[in-house]
Amino acid sequence: MMKVSIERAVLLKAVSQAQSVVERRNTIPILANVLIEAEGDTVSFRATDLDIEVLDRAPAQVERAGATTVSAVTLHEIVRKLPDGALVQLADDAASGRLTVTAGRSNFNLATLPREDFPVMASSEYSSNFSAKAEVLRRLYDKSKFAISTEETRYYLNGVYMHVAESEEGRVLRCVATDGHRLARIDAALPAGAEEMPGVIVPRKTVNELRKLLDDDEMDIAVSVSETKVRFATPDITLTSKVIDGTFPDYSRVIPMGNTRRLEVDAKEFAKAVDRVATVSSERSRAVKLQLDEDRLVLSVNAPDSGAAEEELAVAYGDEPLEIGFNAKYLQEIADQVDRENAVFLFNSSGDPTLMREGSDTSAVYVVMPMRV
Amino acid sequence: MMKVSIERAVLLKAVSQAQSVVERRNTIPILANVLIEAEGDTVSFRATDLDIEVLDRAPAQVERAGATTVSAVTLHEIVRKLPDGALVQLADDAASGRLTVTAGRSNFNLATLPREDFPVMASSEYSSNFSAKAEVLRRLYDKSKFAISTEETRYYLNGVYMHVAESEEGRVLRCVATDGHRLARIDAALPAGAEEMPGVIVPRKTVNELRKLLDDDEMDIAVSVSETKVRFATPDITLTSKVIDGTFPDYSRVIPMGNTRRLEVDAKEFAKAVDRVATVSSERSRAVKLQLDEDRLVLSVNAPDSGAAEEELAVAYGDEPLEIGFNAKYLQEIADQVDRENAVFLFNSSGDPTLMREGSDTSAVYVVMPMRV
Repeated sequence: MMKVSIERAVLLKAVSQAQSVVERRNTIPILANVLIEAEGDTVSFRATDLDIEVLDRAPAQVERAGATTVSAVTLHEIVRKLPDGALVQLADDAASGRLTVTAGRSNFNLATLPREDFPVMASSEYSSNFSAKAEVLRRLYDKSKFAISTEETRYYLNGVYMHVAESEEGRVLRCVATDGHRLARIDAALPAGAEEMPGVIVPRKTVNELRKLLDDDEMDIAVSVSETKVRFATPDITLTSKVIDGTFPDYSRVIPMGNTRRLEVDAKEFAKAVDRVATVSSERSRAVKLQLDEDRLVLSVNAPDSGAAEEELAVAYGDEPLEIGFNAKYLQEIADQVDRENAVFLFNSSGDPTLMREGSDTSAVYVVMPMRV
Repeated sequence: MMKVSIERAVLLKAVSQAQSVVERRNTIPILANVLIEAEGDTVSFRATDLDIEVLDRAPAQVERAGATTVSAVTLHEIVRKLPDGALVQLADDAASGRLTVTAGRSNFNLATLPREDFPVMASSEYSSNFSAKAEVLRRLYDKSKFAISTEETRYYLNGVYMHVAESEEGRVLRCVATDGHRLARIDAALPAGAEEMPGVIVPRKTVNELRKLLDDDEMDIAVSVSETKVRFATPDITLTSKVIDGTFPDYSRVIPMGNTRRLEVDAKEFAKAVDRVATVSSERSRAVKLQLDEDRLVLSVNAPDSGAAEEELAVAYGDEPLEIGFNAKYLQEIADQVDRENAVFLFNSSGDPTLMREGSDTSAVYVVMPMRV
């Protein structure tokens, strides 16, 4: 019996965020649907894949309160195609079991499923609640997520490990991701209230959904964490997710402490040069060789069948000559994380893990394993 | 022994056009390569898939004339990644069988194959040579190619039939494409020299490659046609293609002459409305029903499982009421061809082919078959 009027732009935003959680191939029909609930002066849209739930609230003119569920993808497509500026009416007809969507001279009626069948995620007790600026969370997750493993057998690496850690600067909120070949460790000042937070592995899909909440730098994001769940909320959107039920490995052993051979290089120039020399090899795991000499770096790739490439870069390097090889894609990806200063690489030998950071900043540290060249 | 210096932007343009003809999966290695020939003050780049050949000429400083072949894709990737403004040197080393590509501190050397192995397309006698403005050819091909068939069994429909025809306005240069469900017939003034041109079926891939030569409205394109080949040339680029060896069916029987029920509608509004109502059905061949009544068009789709949609449009229609169904995609595609005036549909009965044109212009005519709804 629900009846609601809502602006097309507002509706589109809310439905977009909800529908992106819905998996395209569902064996359980209700999981393809979005739960629409109207009450007071708000309509909420809720979607879930049973692991993640997103709840979007939007202002609307509610003529009659009520609730129903319809296909998230179809509703989203319809709203997307409606003309900008349209006023959209959603009316639930209990008799026919249909939701009518009306805008101007367009009229749709969509099959519904009962709201009672929609699996609303059980509410939880969160042991830790704190607030963080969107830009702080964005940095923590954006700079770590490239290293998330895609190997399903190592499910405990399929996310970002968010936890409280001791750094040289004191206690910090830390995100770590690794796939065994490279690792990213990003720190931020510990927010008040996060001190007792249990460490949680936030799944890749949740990391991607979270990103959509973080565009407005100054927005305060309410974060709640328990042993089994994590929740991120803005005034309009609540994203709740199960965390990965596993133990994140002790990554500290992987981070080399004694690397002393220091290379400083313009990160953008470096990334572009790696990309160029890698062109001559069509193999997926292309090895790039770095030859280091006094203030001079030569990058090279040798693919006997197709060709060879070499490029020289002016760098700052004052240690003994060194030759070391890396997967080209891994090198590029860590260099791409550097956004303010030069990239500083710290090497040991050609067989040891290499550390990279931005200038002298130790709040973002990357490790990459070498490969034989 | 070839040695050449060429600007990166000039080289990129020439190599891009050449490499797009190269098929990504080649069983014959030389077909993955581009033939580079340097002489005088020009370097030319030639690529082929044995059916189409593209030849690009670019100004360069030729220190030593010569020729060789290298991977088109690798060369293109390298040049694309070089910094803008770079001067690129190409030097062929006969001893090592390698082509050296140098720009600034970047150095590549690429495996070559002998120029003698490159299958240069045999030159032909063309029975017809004429010139046409790029914008004229663009209109002929852009407005017809959507109707090209993708059914390999009807290979003679896998292209655009370019020929000389008699229209109400006299003799014209005409392009026709059809897949049996819809048809496009586009006319242009007959260029001098085209009078005796044999009709040729220009393959889809050639039509797509040709499009890249037609961006500059006022450019004169030299067109040459024989029974087996067609050639399009600008001062820099020559595109030569075999034509489809088959007989294009007599399309004139398909174009209804006696349709009198006339609907006039804003083409953009119509296309958008068709797109919107089709949203409720997930089937690929979605049927849209058109209900026509005095100055009123109702579009509707009914998909019992998922929903229904209806939209009303104000139109000009003065004949008896009519109900007729079409594939939504076909309707949208022909409406998308209309760019200046209203779309005019001419119907007969709900079982007969429908004709569409732009206003009263008969130089672009579309036919679409109805479907039962």
